[in-house]
Amino acid sequence: MEVIPPVLPAFLDLGGTAVFALSGALLAARLKQTFVTCAFFALLTGVGGGSVRDALLGVPAFWLRDFWVLPVILAAALIAWFIPRKWWEGRWLEWADALGLALFCTLGTAKALAFDVAPLAAIVLGIVTGCVGGIIRDVIAGVPSIIMRPELYVTAAALTAASCAGMILLGVPQALSMAVAALAGFALRGAALIWSIELPSYSREV
Amino acid sequence: MEVIPPVLPAFLDLGGTAVFALSGALLAARLKQTFVTCAFFALLTGVGGGSVRDALLGVPAFWLRDFWVLPVILAAALIAWFIPRKWWEGRWLEWADALGLALFCTLGTAKALAFDVAPLAAIVLGIVTGCVGGIIRDVIAGVPSIIMRPELYVTAAALTAASCAGMILLGVPQALSMAVAALAGFALRGAALIWSIELPSYSREV
Amino acid sequence: MEVIPPVLPAFLDLGGTAVFALSGALLAARLKQTFVTCAFFALLTGVGGGSVRDALLGVPAFWLRDFWVLPVILAAALIAWFIPRKWWEGRWLEWADALGLALFCTLGTAKALAFDVAPLAAIVLGIVTGCVGGIIRDVIAGVPSIIMRPELYVTAAALTAASCAGMILLGVPQALSMAVAALAGFALRGAALIWSIELPSYSREV
Repeated sequence: MEVIPPVLPAFLDLGGTAVFALSGALLAARLKQTFVTCAFFALLTGVGGGSVRDALLGVPAFWLRDFWVLPVILAAALIAWFIPRKWWEGRWLEWADALGLALFCTLGTAKALAFDVAPLAAIVLGIVTGCVGGIIRDVIAGVPSIIMRPELYVTAAALTAASCAGMILLGVPQALSMAVAALAGFALRGAALIWSIELPSYSREV
Repeated sequence: MEVIPPVLPAFLDLGGTAVFALSGALLAARLKQTFVTCAFFALLTGVGGGSVRDALLGVPAFWLRDFWVLPVILAAALIAWFIPRKWWEGRWLEWADALGLALFCTLGTAKALAFDVAPLAAIVLGIVTGCVGGIIRDVIAGVPSIIMRPELYVTAAALTAASCAGMILLGVPQALSMAVAALAGFALRGAALIWSIELPSYSREV
Repeated sequence: MEVIPPVLPAFLDLGGTAVFALSGALLAARLKQTFVTCAFFALLTGVGGGSVRDALLGVPAFWLRDFWVLPVILAAALIAWFIPRKWWEGRWLEWADALGLALFCTLGTAKALAFDVAPLAAIVLGIVTGCVGGIIRDVIAGVPSIIMRPELYVTAAALTAASCAGMILLGVPQALSMAVAALAGFALRGAALIWSIELPSYSREV
C-alpha cells in the first residue's frame, strides 16, 4: 500500500509515548518489580494501543522501523526507576496521561482514515489507540482496569476520536482537526480530573 | 490477495454480532459501569474473536470497511442500557449466545479455509472466532473466563469448527456444510444448557 | 514479501513448542479443567508468543500453513492429560521451559531481523516471542503472571535476544549467533533456577 499515515510533530508523538511508558513503568515499580519488568511494562503501555490498531489494520506495527520510539521507552523506564517515588506523587502524571490519551486518539483516528476505513471504524481505532495500552498494562499487572473506573476516560477518548473524524470528513484541514480534537479531549479529561466528573453508572435494580 | 471470504446471510452474521455485543454490554451493566464502558465492552465482545482471527490471518479486521457491524454493536449497547435488567433474567440470552457461538465458529472456519490454511489451523481459527470475544470480555472485566467453567463451551465450538472443516474438505457444498455444522454445535451447546452436561474435569490426585 | 525467515532445526523448534504447550496444559489440569480446555491452553501457550510476533510484523501466523505445530500441541495436551501429575513434580519441566524460552527468543529475533526491522525492535520481538505465550496463559487462567515473579525470566529472554541480534548485526554467521545466544540465555535462566538468582526489586520508600 502507498498509504502515507499522518504524523504528529515528533515531539508530541514521542511525548505521548513517553508518558504512557512512564505510567507503565511506575505501576511496575509500585508493584515492586525488577528493572527489566519495569521496562517491559513501559513497552506494553507505550506501544500497546498503537500496535493493536496496526494489527487490526493489517499493517506492521509502527515502532518496528522507527528509530526513536524504543529508546524513548527505555529512557522512560530509567527515569521511573531512578527518580524517587515521592516526586511522582502530585497529580501531574495524570495530566500528562490525559495529554497522551488526547494525542494518541487523534493520531489513531487520522491514521485509520488515511487507510480509508469506514468513519465509525476510524473512531473506534482512535479510541483503541488511546486506551488499549493502559488496558494491557492493567490486565497483566492484575489491577482493576482503567476503563472500569467511573471517572471519564473512555468517554474523553471517544470525544477526541469522534470530533477528529468528524472534522476531517467535513473537510477541515487535517492538522487543524487534529489540534482541535486533541484539545477538546484533553479539556474533557482535565475537567474530569479537576471536578471528578463521572458519567452516571448503570443503576437499575439488580 | 484475491480471496473472497464466505459470508453468512447478513441477518445471521449481524445477529451473532448483536448477541455477543449484548452479552458484553450486559456484563458491564451488571458491574455498574457507564454507558460508554458498556458500549466498549459490546465492541470487544462483538468483534474480538473475528478481529483476532483476522490478525492471525494477517488481513485487516473484517469490521473496518463494513457499514453495519458497528451500528449494530451500538444498538446492542443501547438496548442493554435501556431495557430493565429483569427482562434479561431468563436463560434465553444463553441460548442466543449458543447461536452466536455456532454461527461464528462456522464462519471463522470457512473464512480460514478460503485463505488456504491447513485443515487443523482452520479448525483452530474457527474456535478462536467463536470463543475469543468472550474471553477478552471476561479478562478485562476481571471475572472468571467462560472457558474455565466446566460446562461444555469450547467443546461445542470445537465440534462446530471440526465438522464444518471436515465436510467442506470432503466436498460437501459450503453452504450445506456450514448449516449442518452450526446446527450440530448449537445442539450440543443447547444440550449442555438443558442438562448441564459437563466433560469430566482433570481429577487425578494433586 | 520474499522474506525467507530463519528456521530452527525442526526438532528444536517443535521441541520448544511442545514444552510451552505442556506448561499450558499442565496449568489447566492443575486448575481441574476438562481435556478440551487443556488443549486450548496448550495452544495459547505454545503458539501465543510467535503469533503476537507475526501480528506485529503484519504477516500471517507461522502455524497456519505448518503441518506439524498443531499436532505437536495436541500430543502435548494428551501427554499432560494422561501422565500422572506426580511425574511432573521435579523441576525438569522448568528446565525444559528454560530451553523453550531460549530457543524461541532466538528464533523470534532472527525472524524479525530477516524482515529488516530496527535492531532494538528485533530484540523486543524476540522477547515477545519467548514470553508472551506464558503471559497469555497466566492472564486467562487468572494466576499471577510469570513476568511478575522476582526470578530472572524476562531478563534471560532479553539477554538471549540482545546477544542474538548483536552477533548477527556484527556479521557472525546466523546459525552460530543463534546457538551462542540460546546457550547464554539458557545458562542464565538455569543459574536463576539453581541458585534462585533474583534481580533487585524496586525498593524505594513508597
